[in-house]
Amino acid sequence: MKFRVKDMDIATGNILIAIINYKDAQRLDLRSGDRILVKHNSHKVTCILNISESDKAVKEGSIGLFEEVLDRLNVKDKQVVDIRLTDKPESVKHIRDKLLGKHLNSQELYHITDDITNDRLTDIEKTYFVAASFIQGLRVPEIIELTKAMVNTGSRIKFGNVTLDKHSIGGVPGNRTTMLIVPIIAAAGFTIPKTSSRAITSPAGTADTMECLAKVELPERKIRSIVKKTGGCIVHGGSMNLAPADDKIIDVEHPLSIDAEGQLLASVMAKKYSVTANHVLIDIPMGKSTKAPTRKAAHHLQKMFQLIGKKLKMNVRVIITDGSHPIGNGIGPVLEAKDVMAVLRNDPLAPQDLKEKALMMAGILLEMTGKYKHGITKAREILESGKALRKMKDIMRAQGKQKMPALGEYTYPVKSTKSGKIQEIDNEIIAKIARIAGAPQDKGAGLLLSKKIHDHVQKNDVLYTIYAESKFKLHLVTKLVKESKGYRIR
Amino acid sequence: MKFRVKDMDIATGNILIAIINYKDAQRLDLRSGDRILVKHNSHKVTCILNISESDKAVKEGSIGLFEEVLDRLNVKDKQVVDIRLTDKPESVKHIRDKLLGKHLNSQELYHITDDITNDRLTDIEKTYFVAASFIQGLRVPEIIELTKAMVNTGSRIKFGNVTLDKHSIGGVPGNRTTMLIVPIIAAAGFTIPKTSSRAITSPAGTADTMECLAKVELPERKIRSIVKKTGGCIVHGGSMNLAPADDKIIDVEHPLSIDAEGQLLASVMAKKYSVTANHVLIDIPMGKSTKAPTRKAAHHLQKMFQLIGKKLKMNVRVIITDGSHPIGNGIGPVLEAKDVMAVLRNDPLAPQDLKEKALMMAGILLEMTGKYKHGITKAREILESGKALRKMKDIMRAQGKQKMPALGEYTYPVKSTKSGKIQEIDNEIIAKIARIAGAPQDKGAGLLLSKKIHDHVQKNDVLYTIYAESKFKLHLVTKLVKESKGYRIR
Repeated sequence: MKFRVKDMDIATGNILIAIINYKDAQRLDLRSGDRILVKHNSHKVTCILNISESDKAVKEGSIGLFEEVLDRLNVKDKQVVDIRLTDKPESVKHIRDKLLGKHLNSQELYHITDDITNDRLTDIEKTYFVAASFIQGLRVPEIIELTKAMVNTGSRIKFGNVTLDKHSIGGVPGNRTTMLIVPIIAAAGFTIPKTSSRAITSPAGTADTMECLAKVELPERKIRSIVKKTGGCIVHGGSMNLAPADDKIIDVEHPLSIDAEGQLLASVMAKKYSVTANHVLIDIPMGKSTKAPTRKAAHHLQKMFQLIGKKLKMNVRVIITDGSHPIGNGIGPVLEAKDVMAVLRNDPLAPQDLKEKALMMAGILLEMTGKYKHGITKAREILESGKALRKMKDIMRAQGKQKMPALGEYTYPVKSTKSGKIQEIDNEIIAKIARIAGAPQDKGAGLLLSKKIHDHVQKNDVLYTIYAESKFKLHLVTKLVKESKGYRIR
Repeated sequence: MKFRVKDMDIATGNILIAIINYKDAQRLDLRSGDRILVKHNSHKVTCILNISESDKAVKEGSIGLFEEVLDRLNVKDKQVVDIRLTDKPESVKHIRDKLLGKHLNSQELYHITDDITNDRLTDIEKTYFVAASFIQGLRVPEIIELTKAMVNTGSRIKFGNVTLDKHSIGGVPGNRTTMLIVPIIAAAGFTIPKTSSRAITSPAGTADTMECLAKVELPERKIRSIVKKTGGCIVHGGSMNLAPADDKIIDVEHPLSIDAEGQLLASVMAKKYSVTANHVLIDIPMGKSTKAPTRKAAHHLQKMFQLIGKKLKMNVRVIITDGSHPIGNGIGPVLEAKDVMAVLRNDPLAPQDLKEKALMMAGILLEMTGKYKHGITKAREILESGKALRKMKDIMRAQGKQKMPALGEYTYPVKSTKSGKIQEIDNEIIAKIARIAGAPQDKGAGLLLSKKIHDHVQKNDVLYTIYAESKFKLHLVTKLVKESKGYRIR
């Protein structure tokens, strides 16, 4: 059937959409979400159909096309295209099977992942997949096949013969061990190509923090050469096409804050498998704000990661750490970057909790290579001798050094309402305050803890200082924050 | 925050959408699906946020608004609006609870249904609700509360003191008993305000078929006066605002052909409860193409309908009928309307299976009122005396009589490849052929069965004739249909 093109003058981002008038849809027995093949000369593309309920947007006989479709078809406003009905992707059937409680095999999971990667599924269809995986659960073989499918629908890069990697499950503000572990491991002569994420719900991701020191959005070719030269990197994973289905799955998990365990495991392991890591250390912080609120939940996750690592022939070690309170002193990109540099410089005022956690983890990674018996001693030597700082400077230079953004100039000290010992610092409240202050978009915003867990305080002691980049945001946050907020003192 | 309006020149149908540039979204920490409150003078409206990934559609500092939002705000292109961040509706939390396996109470189900009715939920959020209800299941109290919520978020109409209603679960082509039962019951002096649906996946719905004889899209006021005058009506439910959430739930069920039992039960019962029916007869056709493929499934559905009817204080009878093959001779709106009129006229060539099923059902309904001991005898008397035909003509006149559309002029006879007895007629194949021929959009398209189940046929006997309104569609269908298609003869 012939339709006249209407340029909708909108880009959708990825997904390929075509709109026809509801009268045409009725006549052709088409519904929103059905697939049509649109042809123009030798170009053709499968689109997801939307229906226009009014004649204003798309008239009868017209087809509204978005930027991405116009480009692929090389067609312009008012030209004529041919459309043909086509079936939904086969993966829709597999998603339906999962809803009905069936186990999916490797081919079925590959189909689904491939169609997600290439934007061939609607949000509704993707949501059914996530909901079904969440409620029905994914068995270990399914998680392994999903992991492989995520890897195989993206790039896989071999960096070196002995490649190390680490991952910390989120939920703990200030937990920036990556930026210490990478220079220590690279200084020890191993390869550690670390890709990190930006904050989604936290006040800073490793990528946001590293960006205060160096560029993190780099093309894959450049990353390869940095790693070859320095042994390591700390870059944003988004630019690398590693397991691209992962982010698209997260897009539909976010609206309901769904955390499907199978998808979490596949997501983490796919990134590691994509960079052909041999030795992987996973840090599961346990605490009420993390994905492992109880010891039982932490042990279960630990077991699952080990099992999947084994099946994927990676040497995986999983540690359970204290995730009940923030780590380091600063919360927010600049403040966290300052903590990291202080540790690397062996500054006596550097946060010792961050330093010791990073040394412990770097030590385990060194032991996993089989080359060191007492890894933490080696790690400490590398850090305290200044080798780690030199390596970090090499990496920053290779990635493109950036001037550290200024700390927010508007500050507010939050004081203690009583004397006593700090029993609890609430991760979620601390993170929320830092976000309201502007982090991570305002890099200089956040908060600096003066008092840490188990410290003794006097009434009116400053517990932490809030930093904001604008008067307005400081005003906003101080209106919400009462004294002692986030701290429990007794 | 102030934004400049861009008129997107698109209507979305219902849902209220606003688009901002990805840079503004990043700065404001907003994601697709978040809610924003848009204000202009004294008007305000909560919109679902979409993000424009390019500057072409919506520039920084601009906000793209769709027709529905522009109208409600009374704002024009280039004017300035104020936006404020707002939380997601509380119902999103309840949907999350359902995903986690919790049982929802009446208030929570009301919130969800109300937000669906008023287009306050995104497709992703609605899909999570359907997926969760489908997999976790809805308990009987939840189905009852969902039914009530569907009713209370729409109109409820009281027609008369004794109001009857019936419903046949779909899946059987030609099953047009409604158009016989309504005139019989109304002729007996009872009230039967029947609202019907159009075909979604079948070749004809009752509304499509009735539309060959009379108008079916009527305002509520008009329907009240028709029922008052004639005792009955056969109209399209879509124009009546009865349980409006139902259709919006079906919209997200359709892409995966999901049939969540809880939603099915609530959907049917809500329509009956909305017209304050006292006596309701439910017909569950059992057969491999229906929602009750096995006796066990049919009995389970029967039990559930009875239970829910009891809780809603409706007198509900549920019968299980033979749904393994088509009923009547014609498949498609005009052909089915002709069958109905032939039965009403007591034409000796009228399909006896359709007549007997309608009489049996009308008989049960008459008995349910308590006024008749042997209902079927009364029903037969009303039909065979011509009273039902006169009543049908009254109803048609009251709704607005329409000229019956012509039968498709392009025909093709499908013949038997062998002699023998007809063992099976496949509902799904027969329905598919009628749809490809053009039904229900082409009202004169469909097929007319010359041979029915258990008939003996000779080789080359015509089994059925395909009708199409255009040469092209007949060509299309005959290319797909081989001789004997849909029939099993032995």
